[in-house]
Formats: sequence, C-alpha cells, structure tokens
Amino acid sequence: MKLASFEIEGAMSYGAVMEGGIVDLKRLCDSGYADLRSVLAADAIAELAALLVGRQADYPLDRVTLLPVIPNPGKIWCCGLNYYEHVEECGAKPANAPLFFLRTASSQAAHGAPVMRPHESEQLDFEGELAIVIGKPGRRIALEDAHRHVAGYACYNDVSVRDWQLRTPQWDVGKNFWRTGSFGPWLVTADEIPFGSDLALVTRLNGAEVQRSSTRMMIHDIAAQIAYLSTIAPLEAGDVIVTGTPGGIGAMRKPPLWIKDGDTVEVEIEGIGVLRNTVAAD
Amino acid sequence: MKLASFEIEGAMSYGAVMEGGIVDLKRLCDSGYADLRSVLAADAIAELAALLVGRQADYPLDRVTLLPVIPNPGKIWCCGLNYYEHVEECGAKPANAPLFFLRTASSQAAHGAPVMRPHESEQLDFEGELAIVIGKPGRRIALEDAHRHVAGYACYNDVSVRDWQLRTPQWDVGKNFWRTGSFGPWLVTADEIPFGSDLALVTRLNGAEVQRSSTRMMIHDIAAQIAYLSTIAPLEAGDVIVTGTPGGIGAMRKPPLWIKDGDTVEVEIEGIGVLRNTVAAD
Repeated sequence: MKLASFEIEGAMSYGAVMEGGIVDLKRLCDSGYADLRSVLAADAIAELAALLVGRQADYPLDRVTLLPVIPNPGKIWCCGLNYYEHVEECGAKPANAPLFFLRTASSQAAHGAPVMRPHESEQLDFEGELAIVIGKPGRRIALEDAHRHVAGYACYNDVSVRDWQLRTPQWDVGKNFWRTGSFGPWLVTADEIPFGSDLALVTRLNGAEVQRSSTRMMIHDIAAQIAYLSTIAPLEAGDVIVTGTPGGIGAMRKPPLWIKDGDTVEVEIEGIGVLRNTVAAD
Repeated sequence: MKLASFEIEGAMSYGAVMEGGIVDLKRLCDSGYADLRSVLAADAIAELAALLVGRQADYPLDRVTLLPVIPNPGKIWCCGLNYYEHVEECGAKPANAPLFFLRTASSQAAHGAPVMRPHESEQLDFEGELAIVIGKPGRRIALEDAHRHVAGYACYNDVSVRDWQLRTPQWDVGKNFWRTGSFGPWLVTADEIPFGSDLALVTRLNGAEVQRSSTRMMIHDIAAQIAYLSTIAPLEAGDVIVTGTPGGIGAMRKPPLWIKDGDTVEVEIEGIGVLRNTVAAD
C-alpha cells in the first residue's frame, strides 16, 4: 500500500494512492485517526488496507495537495556520512558509530511543493536519501528485531544550506531551513519491500543524474541505525530516520553545483517512486 | 505570573503558581486551550491573568506532578559555547556565528522528576542555562523587535551524555537521551523580567556550587539568538531557546565530575526560581 498525507479543500487528510488517484481513508475510517502518525500509533495499517477492498480512487492525484509523508513527526533523525563514496568526497573518515543530526517538522517540504532557497544563501545542495518511518515503538531494540519496527519507506531529499551548515561545527542550522527537507511522495508499507532490500537510489537535477547508488552501500544499515537511535530514547510511531546520502553532492564538485531557483530536483528509489520538487526563492 | 504544566489524577493541565499552590487554569478557562503551547499560540496570557483575580490555589504544589514547562515544543534550539569561560574550558574558539543544536521533546524532564542516566554511560554532565519560550511567532525578526517575541523565561538543565555526544562530531545524540533535559520549574512571564536583564545563574550539585555566572556574560545575547534562529525558519509559539551554559561543567574538571545516580542537581536563576532534579538509572 502507498499511503500519503494530503490536503483537499483546506482540510488535512490521508489516503492510499492507487491506479487513477487517491482513496480518502480519513473520510472512510470510522476510527477517526487524525493523521497518518495516529494511524501508525494505533497499529492500524491493516484496518486501512481492509477499507480499500473493491474501492476506486476518490480524487485524481492532481486534485489534492500532497503533504510531507508524516507532516508532524516526533523526531526526524538524519544519518550523515553513511556511504563510503560520500565520506571520501567530504575528506572525512568513517566514524566508529553512526553520525546523526536532527531536523524539525517545519523544515519539511512535500512532493510537488517548492523546496525553498533562503535569500540569505546561494549554496543550496541536494542529498537523495531513503527515509524509513517507525511503526511499532520501542527502546533498546535489538538488531534482529529492528525490522518489526519499520512501518514503511519513502524518498527524502535532505536539502542543505551549506554555508550555514558549516558556519559552526554543528550542522543543524543548515539542515533546518524552512521547507527544505522534502519527504515523499508517499509511504510504501513495509510488506511491499522486504527488510534489507538492496534498492537503487538516483538523484537528478534538471533531468541529469547527479547521484546513483544503492542502499546496500550504507555503512551503518537500517537495523544498526534503529538499534543505535532506540538506545538514546524510545522510537515512537511516526518517527523518521533519514538514512544518509551517497556520493555526488553539489558542494564537493569542482566547481560546486548549487541548485538554483526554478531548478527541478528528483530523488528516485526503486520500489518507492520519484520525489520531485522545484526550487523557489524564499 | 508563573505558569506551569502539570498532571493531576492522570490528566494534563496547566496553571499559575502562587502563594499556597497552583490554580488550575485549564479547568477555569472557557476557551479550552489544550495546553500552554496553545495558550501562547492564542496570545492568551492576559486572558489567563484575568482569571486569577481574587482566586486562591486549587491544589498545594505537592499534590500535582509538574511537567516540562512546555511538554511539546515544536522546536528546542540549544545554543552551545555561548559563555567565554565555557568556550575556554572546552579549548574552543568563539565562532563568528552562534552555534546551535537541537533537542527533541522526548529528551525533556520535569522539575522534581528524575533526570535519567542511561546505563550505557557513566559520563552524565550538568549544564545550567536560561531558557526562553517564544510567544509571538515570526520570521527574520530584527534585533530591535526580538523582545516582542518572548513569552517568558525558565531554568533549563541541558544534561548531556558526554561520551555519546563526542563519539562523532555532531552532538545531537548525546543531547537527546530520554528524560535528560530538565525544563522548569515554571515559566515566568516576560512582563516580570525586563528584556535584557542581567540574571545570576547558579548550578549546584548535591548542594555545592559548580557553576556561577550571569546572563549578561552570554557571547550571543537573546536578541541575537532570536534574530539568527528566525532566519532559518519561523519561530512559533511554544518554541524553546536554551541559551547556553557558563563555565564549570563536569567534563572539563580534573578529574571529571560526573553526576551519579541519587545525586541532586539544581539550577537557580534570579527572578525565576530553582529547578531541582535527582538522578536515577535508566
């Protein structure tokens, strides 16, 4: 199932993307879950799936405004320096532990919405990544149990404002500009992608490929990330883990390749789909 | 006015702390604001103050369980290396921009509740700090307008798990262990503390003073922090800015002074009060 958060006629909803459009599951669902995060917290994906049997789309996709897959996650952990090629291009060394920083919900953007370039910077950069969304909560999750805690997968473009990111040793500032982190287009539920699958990941800028790798090239795999992060604090339903970007980022090219107003950036992941954004000045 | 979030008989509420206890403002308030964050978003502090006229406390303070002042902030920005004495003890140089990292809501603890030491570390450290809470939202706030956006002030103990914080160059992991960041005991509304006041700040470990400074010793003052952070993304009602710790942290002492299970840590700030926590193993 492909689950998406969206807005229609000013109201927030969520639904399933299918041939021909989207089924409005919030409207159908008597249980009245407020949003996808609440659906995950209630462990209600199977309940939603049952509602889909024999249904047709309520709206064509272009009639709704998609939102970030989870618009209001409790935590968004992002893994840095997690593909060797990217570690190398940054002149860094792989750390002995996974490296994480945080995003806030207001830094997120939706598929189809513009990613915002703040007028304070010309150094906007792309980072195509696989995002996982937590379903079952847990603390100190063992490596072998990690797969039980994944509700599903989406694409993420961890768009970064490089000069602000590197102005001090802590990256969070440059990773949290308003509407930079694009998260979409939808959540592919975990039953459709076997845990540990090797998925091709491609980023394109104005149609030209700028990153290509596959998720098996991660230094710290998804199970390791879940185990590590759940040691720190409970992982909760709707929490997001953005698992790191491969080589090819704009900042490390000579000359650097910054994304500019009007550009189109795509992140495509095998089995999930294409996350597409244009860039606009903020 | 001193505003606190609390729980009584399993229900979350908020109220005003006064002589003899606390007035339950959520119960009194017809407008039905769900929590203090909603009160701030509705710009309703004056509405709450009017309800207090002639009232006596509903409960003695020891009958309620205090919560973190804002249990559910949209963002918790923490300023690092913001007092010269602390920059020096860390062997760092003052950056040309304020340095920020993020906390998540689940990393917060309340006054009177235990701060949790994860059993994965013996290196738990205190950091007494002044926290400000945003009232009026805003983006790209000018220095001279910053004071209009502050709803009030509280104490914060930015308790850090040092070995996990320094395992990679990004600090967020060591700053986000479950129930480590203590935030309380209450919010003193901005009308009671003139903007830019020089407030004495003292941290005590088991009664012995371990940090003493005053808020005028900040490198980047509150207005500068608000202006900088609001450039990144809109500051919203209930957002928290933890403004940095002075010198004296345990990690930089010889030998290091770690806080241990059973210890009591206090952060006292002039005009606000004393935030007190014991430490328990998690």
